[in-house]
Amino acid sequence: MSIILKQHIDEISPLTDDEFAFVLSHFTVKKFKKHQYLIQEGDLVQNDYFVVSGLLKSSHTDARGKEHILQFAMENWWISDPQAYHNQTPATLYVNCLEDTETLAITLHNREKLCVEFRKMEYFFRKKTTAGYIAMQKRVLSLIGSDSKERYLQLIEQYPQFRRLPKTMIAAYLGITRETLSRFEAS
Amino acid sequence: MSIILKQHIDEISPLTDDEFAFVLSHFTVKKFKKHQYLIQEGDLVQNDYFVVSGLLKSSHTDARGKEHILQFAMENWWISDPQAYHNQTPATLYVNCLEDTETLAITLHNREKLCVEFRKMEYFFRKKTTAGYIAMQKRVLSLIGSDSKERYLQLIEQYPQFRRLPKTMIAAYLGITRETLSRFEAS
Repeated sequence: MSIILKQHIDEISPLTDDEFAFVLSHFTVKKFKKHQYLIQEGDLVQNDYFVVSGLLKSSHTDARGKEHILQFAMENWWISDPQAYHNQTPATLYVNCLEDTETLAITLHNREKLCVEFRKMEYFFRKKTTAGYIAMQKRVLSLIGSDSKERYLQLIEQYPQFRRLPKTMIAAYLGITRETLSRFEAS
Repeated sequence: MSIILKQHIDEISPLTDDEFAFVLSHFTVKKFKKHQYLIQEGDLVQNDYFVVSGLLKSSHTDARGKEHILQFAMENWWISDPQAYHNQTPATLYVNCLEDTETLAITLHNREKLCVEFRKMEYFFRKKTTAGYIAMQKRVLSLIGSDSKERYLQLIEQYPQFRRLPKTMIAAYLGITRETLSRFEAS
């Protein structure tokens, strides 16, 4: 199962098999069942998770109890509560499984150790974080600059696999109601 | 004027004076007048800009000609079109000055060179980008999870200095109309 992590790192920082074995020794295999929570609000966040298989989401629950979805993650994606993980502050997000999921988990301690020990991995994480920043900025622009129907069409075009998600989750990701989403689908 | 860049880097990667002189040799001083554009849509983006003094904004103009503000930047902040800068693709944002502005500019070539030559700066840029990612994620959560009045109150609380910005710009940053903003201020 670790081959997909190697391919993922190789895209930015090509590694020999020996180098990858060293990198992999910093990760732990963690498997979760559908509906299981990896992170709950208030937790100390131990890990950043690289998804080997399955599907997860991260979300925030507001003061009124309404859920807002920040991110979905499938094979080849990373998911955690980044603020809580990097700053070691209590989680403000929930992360849970929408399907049975296998991950390779890395603690902040091991991640920082790996960056110090192995320059290619510091380069990898720097580039990967930059790509994540750019993706997050595009999401901000889409939220402030597009109407909700455009956001829905962009999402379905960019991630056709999201069609299999429950409609209520797509709506919670777009920041619209379930009823509004149904109108877009009908039109 | 470069002392504020040293203080800024020192917060993450403390540097000796000699090390900082070496870092600084990778930057160029660039000064701009109020209303001047650093980046326009379609440009090749040469630089990431560290703001020494002044005030700028980055924005996107949609297909209907409406402006949406992604970011403001003042002393100690960085501004550019990150996607265009890092991927060397044409700019999709505008960056312009709201006041006379002094910056220290670094090309992507010099930034990458500096990261290779000097480990402390690779660490600095990795940590700084992580912090930027977390800030951008908070903005996404605020956009999907708060109503526009909450967003306005959060903004004014987090950045009291934004009160001096024109109301139309605050509205374009929050993704609301000028009229809606006026109702919040009156209430």
